[in-house]
Amino acid sequence: MSVTLHVCITCRAGQTLGEGETPPGARLHAAILEAGAPADVNVVAVECLSACSQGCSVALSAPGRWSYVYGRLSDANAQDVVAGAAAYAAAPDGIVPWRSRPEIFRKQSLARIPPITTLSTVVSEAAE
Amino acid sequence: MSVTLHVCITCRAGQTLGEGETPPGARLHAAILEAGAPADVNVVAVECLSACSQGCSVALSAPGRWSYVYGRLSDANAQDVVAGAAAYAAAPDGIVPWRSRPEIFRKQSLARIPPITTLSTVVSEAAE
Repeated sequence: MSVTLHVCITCRAGQTLGEGETPPGARLHAAILEAGAPADVNVVAVECLSACSQGCSVALSAPGRWSYVYGRLSDANAQDVVAGAAAYAAAPDGIVPWRSRPEIFRKQSLARIPPITTLSTVVSEAAE
Repeated sequence: MSVTLHVCITCRAGQTLGEGETPPGARLHAAILEAGAPADVNVVAVECLSACSQGCSVALSAPGRWSYVYGRLSDANAQDVVAGAAAYAAAPDGIVPWRSRPEIFRKQSLARIPPITTLSTVVSEAAE
């Protein structure tokens, strides 16, 4: 399935930037593009994911799937972000087995949101 | 528009619970139901929003809209959560003017995720 990887390009990751200096978020975005996302991962730049105190951050989402937000990233994590996004795209339901996720995805989750449903039942933690 | 308010009911908010003690997340969920969500806000319990270090947490989402995750909540915030969810449901595009949001939504955002799109353009920060 084609999935979306949103990358915050305005994130300063708590740094004070000099004039003309590229924000860490934009560097992460560039590094992800350079690492090369697979065709079924649509990389979309976004101005702020509202996770500023935990930046840099990215979000993975797709219709009918859990969305995931990860933080405390830098351009050094680009390869792992791409690998994690590719695994999310490849998993039939978007739920990647815990041990198959990159370490940054296991340890640096900021939040996840269940797929939109109209059922008022409890959503179980299968997606962990 | 009908929107979904996910409430993490397993959150311990960093506390050690005694046997049989109700988790703070479940207390928040019960308080939200007691406060009474409007008909266009579908309250859905979820087992973990993966924001454990910032719990208790809730998430607002709807098709075609930005999703928002808020944290550091307790049952004392139930009325404000309901008010914020109602404003999100009532806003034509789900983007509530900054000053019209409850303070907990302005100050306790954990993350937001843009609506799913297939466009590779930069998502602007209109939704702040």
